[in-house]
Amino acid sequence: MTHHEPHTAKDLLVDIENLALNPRPQTHAALRPTTVQREEKAHWKRVVHRPGTLRKHDFSDIKETTLQAKGAVFEALRCLKCADAPCQKGCPTSIDIKMFIQCIATQNFYGAAKIIFSDNPVGLSCGMVCPTEELCVGGCNLAGAEQGPINIGGLQAFATETFKKMRIPQIRDPTLPPASEMPPAFHKKIAIIGAGPAGISCATFLGRLGYDNIHVFEALAYGGGLSTTEIPQYRLDSESVLWELSLMTDLGVHVHYNQRLGQHFTIESLRRDNFESIFVGIGMPQPKIVPEFEGLSVANGFYSSKSFLPVVSEGSKKGLCACHSSTTALPVLHGRVIVLGAGDTAFDCAGSAFRCGASRVIVTFRRSLADMRAVDEEFNMARDERAEFLPYCAPKKVILNDQGKIVALELYKMERGEDGEYRRDEDQVLRVKCDYIISAFGSTVEDQLRASMAPMKFTNGVAAVDKKTMQVIEGDQPSRWLFAGGDLAGSGITVEAANDGKTAAWFMHRALQTTLVSDIPKLPMFMTPIDTVDISVNFVGIKFLNPFGIASATGATSAAMIARAFDASWGFAVTKTYSLDKDSVTNVSPRIIRGSTSGARFGPHQSSFLNIELISEKSATYWISAVKQLKKDYPEHRVIASIMCGYSKEDWQELVKLTLNNSNPDALELNLSCPHGMGERGMGLACGQKPDMVRNICSWVAEVCTVPFFAKMTPNITDIREIARAAKEGGATGVTAINTISGLMGLKSSGEPWPAVGAKKETTFGGVSGNAARPVALRAVSTIANTLHGYPLMATGGADSAESCVEFLHLGASLVQICSAVQNQDFTVVQDYIMGLKAHLYMQARADLREGWESQHVRPTVTLKTGTLPRFGAYERTRWSQEQAVQADKPMDLAVTPVVPLPPMERISTVNDIIGKSLHFVGCYSTLDQKAQVVAAVNDDICINCGKCYMTCNDSGYQAITFDPKTHQPFITDDCTGCTLCVSVCPVPDCITMVARTTPYAPRRGVPLGAPMLPVA
Amino acid sequence: MTHHEPHTAKDLLVDIENLALNPRPQTHAALRPTTVQREEKAHWKRVVHRPGTLRKHDFSDIKETTLQAKGAVFEALRCLKCADAPCQKGCPTSIDIKMFIQCIATQNFYGAAKIIFSDNPVGLSCGMVCPTEELCVGGCNLAGAEQGPINIGGLQAFATETFKKMRIPQIRDPTLPPASEMPPAFHKKIAIIGAGPAGISCATFLGRLGYDNIHVFEALAYGGGLSTTEIPQYRLDSESVLWELSLMTDLGVHVHYNQRLGQHFTIESLRRDNFESIFVGIGMPQPKIVPEFEGLSVANGFYSSKSFLPVVSEGSKKGLCACHSSTTALPVLHGRVIVLGAGDTAFDCAGSAFRCGASRVIVTFRRSLADMRAVDEEFNMARDERAEFLPYCAPKKVILNDQGKIVALELYKMERGEDGEYRRDEDQVLRVKCDYIISAFGSTVEDQLRASMAPMKFTNGVAAVDKKTMQVIEGDQPSRWLFAGGDLAGSGITVEAANDGKTAAWFMHRALQTTLVSDIPKLPMFMTPIDTVDISVNFVGIKFLNPFGIASATGATSAAMIARAFDASWGFAVTKTYSLDKDSVTNVSPRIIRGSTSGARFGPHQSSFLNIELISEKSATYWISAVKQLKKDYPEHRVIASIMCGYSKEDWQELVKLTLNNSNPDALELNLSCPHGMGERGMGLACGQKPDMVRNICSWVAEVCTVPFFAKMTPNITDIREIARAAKEGGATGVTAINTISGLMGLKSSGEPWPAVGAKKETTFGGVSGNAARPVALRAVSTIANTLHGYPLMATGGADSAESCVEFLHLGASLVQICSAVQNQDFTVVQDYIMGLKAHLYMQARADLREGWESQHVRPTVTLKTGTLPRFGAYERTRWSQEQAVQADKPMDLAVTPVVPLPPMERISTVNDIIGKSLHFVGCYSTLDQKAQVVAAVNDDICINCGKCYMTCNDSGYQAITFDPKTHQPFITDDCTGCTLCVSVCPVPDCITMVARTTPYAPRRGVPLGAPMLPVA
Repeated sequence: MTHHEPHTAKDLLVDIENLALNPRPQTHAALRPTTVQREEKAHWKRVVHRPGTLRKHDFSDIKETTLQAKGAVFEALRCLKCADAPCQKGCPTSIDIKMFIQCIATQNFYGAAKIIFSDNPVGLSCGMVCPTEELCVGGCNLAGAEQGPINIGGLQAFATETFKKMRIPQIRDPTLPPASEMPPAFHKKIAIIGAGPAGISCATFLGRLGYDNIHVFEALAYGGGLSTTEIPQYRLDSESVLWELSLMTDLGVHVHYNQRLGQHFTIESLRRDNFESIFVGIGMPQPKIVPEFEGLSVANGFYSSKSFLPVVSEGSKKGLCACHSSTTALPVLHGRVIVLGAGDTAFDCAGSAFRCGASRVIVTFRRSLADMRAVDEEFNMARDERAEFLPYCAPKKVILNDQGKIVALELYKMERGEDGEYRRDEDQVLRVKCDYIISAFGSTVEDQLRASMAPMKFTNGVAAVDKKTMQVIEGDQPSRWLFAGGDLAGSGITVEAANDGKTAAWFMHRALQTTLVSDIPKLPMFMTPIDTVDISVNFVGIKFLNPFGIASATGATSAAMIARAFDASWGFAVTKTYSLDKDSVTNVSPRIIRGSTSGARFGPHQSSFLNIELISEKSATYWISAVKQLKKDYPEHRVIASIMCGYSKEDWQELVKLTLNNSNPDALELNLSCPHGMGERGMGLACGQKPDMVRNICSWVAEVCTVPFFAKMTPNITDIREIARAAKEGGATGVTAINTISGLMGLKSSGEPWPAVGAKKETTFGGVSGNAARPVALRAVSTIANTLHGYPLMATGGADSAESCVEFLHLGASLVQICSAVQNQDFTVVQDYIMGLKAHLYMQARADLREGWESQHVRPTVTLKTGTLPRFGAYERTRWSQEQAVQADKPMDLAVTPVVPLPPMERISTVNDIIGKSLHFVGCYSTLDQKAQVVAAVNDDICINCGKCYMTCNDSGYQAITFDPKTHQPFITDDCTGCTLCVSVCPVPDCITMVARTTPYAPRRGVPLGAPMLPVA
Repeated sequence: MTHHEPHTAKDLLVDIENLALNPRPQTHAALRPTTVQREEKAHWKRVVHRPGTLRKHDFSDIKETTLQAKGAVFEALRCLKCADAPCQKGCPTSIDIKMFIQCIATQNFYGAAKIIFSDNPVGLSCGMVCPTEELCVGGCNLAGAEQGPINIGGLQAFATETFKKMRIPQIRDPTLPPASEMPPAFHKKIAIIGAGPAGISCATFLGRLGYDNIHVFEALAYGGGLSTTEIPQYRLDSESVLWELSLMTDLGVHVHYNQRLGQHFTIESLRRDNFESIFVGIGMPQPKIVPEFEGLSVANGFYSSKSFLPVVSEGSKKGLCACHSSTTALPVLHGRVIVLGAGDTAFDCAGSAFRCGASRVIVTFRRSLADMRAVDEEFNMARDERAEFLPYCAPKKVILNDQGKIVALELYKMERGEDGEYRRDEDQVLRVKCDYIISAFGSTVEDQLRASMAPMKFTNGVAAVDKKTMQVIEGDQPSRWLFAGGDLAGSGITVEAANDGKTAAWFMHRALQTTLVSDIPKLPMFMTPIDTVDISVNFVGIKFLNPFGIASATGATSAAMIARAFDASWGFAVTKTYSLDKDSVTNVSPRIIRGSTSGARFGPHQSSFLNIELISEKSATYWISAVKQLKKDYPEHRVIASIMCGYSKEDWQELVKLTLNNSNPDALELNLSCPHGMGERGMGLACGQKPDMVRNICSWVAEVCTVPFFAKMTPNITDIREIARAAKEGGATGVTAINTISGLMGLKSSGEPWPAVGAKKETTFGGVSGNAARPVALRAVSTIANTLHGYPLMATGGADSAESCVEFLHLGASLVQICSAVQNQDFTVVQDYIMGLKAHLYMQARADLREGWESQHVRPTVTLKTGTLPRFGAYERTRWSQEQAVQADKPMDLAVTPVVPLPPMERISTVNDIIGKSLHFVGCYSTLDQKAQVVAAVNDDICINCGKCYMTCNDSGYQAITFDPKTHQPFITDDCTGCTLCVSVCPVPDCITMVARTTPYAPRRGVPLGAPMLPVA
């Protein structure tokens, strides 16, 4: 109606469309007969746990627990980052899991990958295939809360895959001397046998330690071990494994392919060739065959997992073998396939069998479903593909037809006794028809191969090693030169193999060195060119190691805490504010509370806190003595003393002199902004809100101060620029913005406040800190920087990540002080910020990475040829079959695209370079371009059809979005005014974007300007 | 060390304990051999999906998907509240699911329960037993995002259970006349046969419609139907079902127990007894027995689900039968039990069989695991209890021993053909030993019983009914007096039975009435005394229906939107600000963005927005005409016109007169606070920051204004009280606090701002709204109210729930305006607020409910006799066995505690009563009690051992918490200063509380006040 001239005022009350799907309040119970509801339900069905889809020749699916950026960040935000985290204890390679999750939560994906690869050189493979429920996830404390444990495997895979896309190489520890200057022991010849997880890990750590003559011998034409040859593509793609291998060769490790132990060489022969240390990580290359299957071969229809999975891999994975294409190389199955076994390998065989043409797959095993070794994820995947299960069965006899083809398998029923043991029951026999049998009963090492590994011995089928050092037992002593690990030494899973290789690397190092190596293990972390980026800052003539400091607040409650903060690598600290002893304070309690600014979310990442804490309770003597000691003990770190007095020249000068005569802080910060308590005593913001008082205090201090000093600004002020200008006029070296925002956080239902002090439950306004304060802080910093050009600025107010600190730097601050983020967690967050800032500066020099995570976190979806289809009900099935049809016709492309590192395209900026970089963007409203209008555009392929855009546009916007009643797809109409609310509420990042408007924007005045009043109807 | 006198400054840098478990930055890769890691892992294991626990005689466990308050709120916050929500389409009873989840998210648990029971009178039962994956959850759009669908069943059960604890009765619609004044048709005799879900639902809706002569005939001594007799206690407790029944009898429905159809009466006899409408909802009372089991009885070891489960229920559920106790009544099983069937009933039999003494339970069925009818939850529960599964099997023959006892069952193997059909294969036979067989092959109605239901006929085993009306087909016409529903009519699940009863109720009503009943169904919603609470407000002499209004912002973009807001029950609206046409504006785009104040969370419940939107683009004529029309069309709702001019007496007076001469708003609001754009034109906050200008503008307006008018305050000001005082002095009727907070939300990685306007990507400071602004708004409102006692106040700023609106009322506001919460969702949120405010006022009059949800949301845990044990690794197993031991000795107490409604203990307050109720708590810091100090106390029973308290105390507090290296239990030491940070970061609500300090608090000065400086060491 508003498009047409309204004739009466009533016309103004009519919406432009009928908004049929916009929510309306319920006035009555709904009446919809069950039979009608059943039909409607099917249309909207979205959750399909059991698609029953046989993906013949299709290995393109990816397991469900993988995450894209939004899901990963959301999941990471849930993580508690526990003290002494049990997840880390559950990880065989001891990855610092909570730190990598912290990095994901702050979108520092490089930091996350660095932490993962530091402890596990095959961290991407492990993210995909680890049975995490039994490892890291098994210890997650959130399993004790109602949300359930963190999807750590998904996070790990996400972070490492993201890093892979960055195309950045591994480098040797840059603090090591060049290879030519390394001691001779580092040039000794080292052999690693097998380029699987154990071998890759062992070679990588030796490479990181500085060894430069490492040779990996691999039996096949490609590396990766089981990860490549047996784990199917849909659980772990070969390109990822080959990339992990390339990170190893980045360190100068030599790989010799097609070199088979026992055929081309033996341990003995390597020893003769002067290899001074040898690690054997060849896994268990041969299948265990039970007597019932002896003599059977592929000709009969019999496979072992070892004769089946590698062929499947060569026919379905990229980069393994140039001569194969999927249509010719995959095993061809048909009809019924029985898989024997209940481990991951059995399920890999089952899934692969379907994809090779089996119409039915029956997985049978001796034990119960509850006792299976395979993890839930694998079981569920197999069940969803309609694999069948026969628990409690053991093979009795294979039935062959006249042509020698398998036609059935007889099975004994197993019985479980009261003792928990399983026994076959001869009375209970079952015959199951089948065309193929795949045995996945584990693997072994045959005698001939064992002989080639002499002097290695075997116990219970596995290599005899010292489990703490991975030294092979030679005679009855641990060998000084022969090591083994992985499956060969009894480790059952990829990540344990990686850990064995790592453990061996350290003890090989100790044995190879001629001088004594420390008892305390010092294995180098993962390094890349990013780690060499300089993040120091020059500020008011002082060098800061990095721009991150502890604010004058709870993180600086004591000198011991500041010392610990420096140990954790914080660049500087501002002491908690102290005063002359005559002004000493005593706190009330409770006094620091959880903010309610992001709702009833308990636990990690509180978006705000409110406190009514005063300045330090400690004496001036305490702080001044401590500053002096801190300066002595931490000469590279900077200490800023925060002080406060009443509006008295004598007091301020006395406290400055007391401080400077008895200690040597790098700078002073004048607290003119504490929002509660102190103000009533004529201190803090009582002075800081008045330009004259600020100017005077600064000039009093300037008279006696011999170091730089900064006035800390309150945001509880009409115009912060006036205060900053006064500080400058008074002679302050610079200012710090902002102190906390005065507020009242809330009341309980009963009307009582929180915090409530004493029997009367009284409260007072406190200071709001944290993310909720950040918009005000960013404004304060930028407006001061744009007004007092170049005036030195420290920022504080809700920074909680490298990226948010960079925002403050871009807006003119040179240093960033942090408090709430540490309250939320602990001092180690600075490690995240340091890695994140280095990565930021590096990535800005790479045009392809400059945009950050926002624009690269959507997994590509298949775009249908004709229009789009939502992903529910029949639409989803149509979409699925269209995708399948395409897949069926198309042989897989098995050519690999190697990950080639890219160097930076520009000089890498220093921190000083980027200070104030964004100030030119921030200006007056009147200068904004009214002509360059935008409108919304929806990406239907990633839309989840929730209609949040439609609702907000209807009830808070311009009714410019329609919503299809059947497909639930939103459509942007010409009425869009570009307000952007739809983008702001959309739960799928980048699903809606704002694009340039193609027609001129003409505001809808409703009734033309100057028109007469309309009559009421 | 700080406890002792420090001798040197070095002493100040030493922490008081070694903080061994506090996180430290990683400097090297970790070295921990796999063998060592394996041992450690077991100690920390917390996630145990397969406990393999047989709970003999123990029915006390509760299914995993239930939620407590924290988990429920957290889950509800994830819900997108989709437009045209698919969850609701998936619910057979069409519950307004997104509205009840909205209510949970705002902790309005009464509202949630009201919405659920409105459409489903057995909503608690359904929350527990619905196969939600196939229903509501099946359509959840979040399944398309990486977080997975919402646990709707858990939320529904939580909300209804919480309401049950409130002890509030159901009442008839209070708008109906008293029974004595109802038309005669409402007194007709109605019979409902069967007090199961269908019958309860049918009787309830008839009761709500106003019928007062409803008689329910129940065959047993207790009601509930299958929910009571068959579904085991651990899936649905009997007390809940009996309470749902009491909600029905609250409406005056008569229940006649021990009245069995076919035995005590027939349909015919009821008809003779003048029942004018009859609904039959007796379910399927008899088991289907396959020929192979014919003639077998309990004596042989044979049960059907119908002879097994009801006995189990009587022996394990409260309140069913006074003469039973669990130890005597439960069936006694031993050895091996085979259960036949793959539906929920089969799994109920399996779980119950374990609890009745079976050592092994084998569930066998014809189809595959993927084709089971039972939902995942049931399957997983059975598997975790170590039930065994034999898919693809059908019974062939039962083997009995000489004594006639079952010893084995022979089974055919089923084969699935290419056509998807299952066929038995005579060649493949399996014999499985067993001691008992339980057949769960479904149920039926036998001929004799069918006869008693004449004239009802049966087709394919179910009653022939018109599926759209539930009328029984009599001859070939739908009956006008006989209806049937539930299992009897072919509905398979509880919720469908409830829906059948509801559908029947409406059509029984239409048939019973002598005058024509509307074609549009009007079934009354669930009502309680809470719904009768008055929430109107008297404010400046005007009556408001409720205190909730649309703020002058995006929700008031057009008059049509205001009309829709009134339709949704908003009490008032403030128009978007308009000006004289000469001051008309044109917006830039983009201009309203997502706040980053709660991190990278996309989608629902954004904690803030930032906008650079100006006042309305529409003309003054538009708005003035619209106001007049709105006042005519919505006489009970209030319209406030928001206006703005430059600092010109003429302009202000002209606009006021133009408005009042041509329309009749209830009040005016002067926008003196728009933080961006308008200020540069000398309008908005450019005036509002200056007391003199505010005073003058108000006095100009006062000269010509004949209605109340309010000045809208900016928070971007040093002292908001001065501005409010100026407004009062100028003659403003009152003030509105606050407008948005000026801020800059952030930059992209590249340094570009967002919003970025035009090719130059420029931005300007915008207004921050939403939860992040609430602490500032609460402070502004309370400080004005405490300064200008009784001065009329409207609040706005981040209110997003009834509870947060109540906070504003408690702090002195009389009305609350809302914007961001509507942007986040839609106008219907007000329904939540209305229900929530009524519930708040009601509950404040009930001493037992006054404290709100904060103090009652922890499920009681078993307190061990000796100390506490954490819930992981061996500790968990020890705890478990201690609990089990207690349970084993103790026969269950089967006495029921009926839920007796409690009336309010005090007069229920009006909204006006509570305005300003909390102002006396808010005062100066100096008056706070320094003596009444508190310290932290940890509840080990609900602690999840994350150590967040320990970390924040170490790095942001007083190192007053120790952390046990083995049990990971935190312990508060005497060093606690009551700062409360530990409470603020704890992820488990109420796990840490602040309790009174028992010793006097003496601040630790570090070094005594006045002491000499310490030497540096």
